[in-house]
Amino acid sequence: MADKTHTRALFLCLLICISTTSGGKPRSRRPCKELVFYFHDVLYLGYNYKNATAVIVGSPNWGNKTAMAKPFNFGDLVVFDDPITLDNNLHSPPVGRAQGMYLYDQWSTYGAWLGFSFLFNSTDYVGTLNFAGADPLMNKTRDISVIGGTGDFFMARGVATVSTDAFEGDVYFRLRVDIRLYECW
Amino acid sequence: MADKTHTRALFLCLLICISTTSGGKPRSRRPCKELVFYFHDVLYLGYNYKNATAVIVGSPNWGNKTAMAKPFNFGDLVVFDDPITLDNNLHSPPVGRAQGMYLYDQWSTYGAWLGFSFLFNSTDYVGTLNFAGADPLMNKTRDISVIGGTGDFFMARGVATVSTDAFEGDVYFRLRVDIRLYECW
Amino acid sequence: MADKTHTRALFLCLLICISTTSGGKPRSRRPCKELVFYFHDVLYLGYNYKNATAVIVGSPNWGNKTAMAKPFNFGDLVVFDDPITLDNNLHSPPVGRAQGMYLYDQWSTYGAWLGFSFLFNSTDYVGTLNFAGADPLMNKTRDISVIGGTGDFFMARGVATVSTDAFEGDVYFRLRVDIRLYECW
Repeated sequence: MADKTHTRALFLCLLICISTTSGGKPRSRRPCKELVFYFHDVLYLGYNYKNATAVIVGSPNWGNKTAMAKPFNFGDLVVFDDPITLDNNLHSPPVGRAQGMYLYDQWSTYGAWLGFSFLFNSTDYVGTLNFAGADPLMNKTRDISVIGGTGDFFMARGVATVSTDAFEGDVYFRLRVDIRLYECW
Repeated sequence: MADKTHTRALFLCLLICISTTSGGKPRSRRPCKELVFYFHDVLYLGYNYKNATAVIVGSPNWGNKTAMAKPFNFGDLVVFDDPITLDNNLHSPPVGRAQGMYLYDQWSTYGAWLGFSFLFNSTDYVGTLNFAGADPLMNKTRDISVIGGTGDFFMARGVATVSTDAFEGDVYFRLRVDIRLYECW
Repeated sequence: MADKTHTRALFLCLLICISTTSGGKPRSRRPCKELVFYFHDVLYLGYNYKNATAVIVGSPNWGNKTAMAKPFNFGDLVVFDDPITLDNNLHSPPVGRAQGMYLYDQWSTYGAWLGFSFLFNSTDYVGTLNFAGADPLMNKTRDISVIGGTGDFFMARGVATVSTDAFEGDVYFRLRVDIRLYECW
């Protein structure tokens, strides 16, 4: 009787063991780390060199580098070096920098593709988080991928939910980023 | 006798357990999801604004934004918003959009680097897949990475095999993308 | 007695099994593969078309495509097709190509964002490694992410430590890349 129980238990255990070796099985959707940040983008539009944090470096044939292209900024490629804050105040002490690029890639509405990193070097965090993904701006929230990390975020993977917390014409926007990591090492 | 068998089985099971905890051990190469799509790229060449889906936004000093640079388009950076279809017909109903960028980065032949997303919002799929990788165009098939996903493709990873299904000079090409995901959540 | 031992062993095994199914638990930080390469970037500056391997394709409004923008190259976007060597000699036989882009994205010092691939097609390796991440150039070493791989590097993930091995003004730099993969398939 005890033998039979053991045999069943062993069999069950082996099944579980085998299932964990396959990449194809469902995994936990409980984040191993959650973080919320804001970052602030002030676009250079010809007149505001002093306080700009982002600059157009590519544009379609009908565009230029001191104004967004029409329609929908399509084809504008922007490089940015934006302060990251813990709250929604542009003047709060930055806890890191968001650096990389975004490019407007929708013809029929506002939307962008993002490739950038968060760089931290503070008492809270030392390291980087790397992001890539689509940002269809007209959606209230947009999910992009955390594709890797270094330092305190070594080998991280996850999903970041981006939402536009504020914008002022073409010159300023503030994004709220809810980061949920599902792979922590 | 039964005890010995049990002991061996337990030992085997523990071995398997331990092996699955290490990132360095071989894993299953059987995809957990397979998908095939086509996407269609119509490049703006100065005269075809109406039906273009892609536009040159960066080019080398010797290039411009209404023609590919010579030789080999090297240095041309293109932003695109291409329809995705289930078959190879440009006029089939799109099931999503391929949005992002490609840049020609080979001096001695045709080759590109891709950073883009598939955006789905249909009865079949809601979510995105994010891609990055090298596309040496002269190879019949090219493998790029699925670096993340959201929504129905939450946390996906995999490999996408890209092949040129058709091209017409500089103005049009159609890519077939065979997506194989090896991490599904 | 033997039964009790078995029960305990089974329980332990189950615990280990379950722990391996969660993405949130610590994993091995022992690399499953380590590689060191050098790559060489010769920037086109108007006069050196013949031996250049990289070219500026985007720049801010105050920049151009035959010189780095001031200050700190901010906003310059470069496409490159650089030889990879096993040692620090530009003239060693290349073992592959580093292809993709970098963009200078720091206003207050030298720093870049990298999106590129290593392409191998030799007796040693056939396949690609895909990279993305921040490269704050003033740091002696910088960690970026290996976000995927194909061929011999199928589904690879890891961290690459980049260091500037040499530079000659704006025209030439050599990066040493220490690649440590933590996910091998």
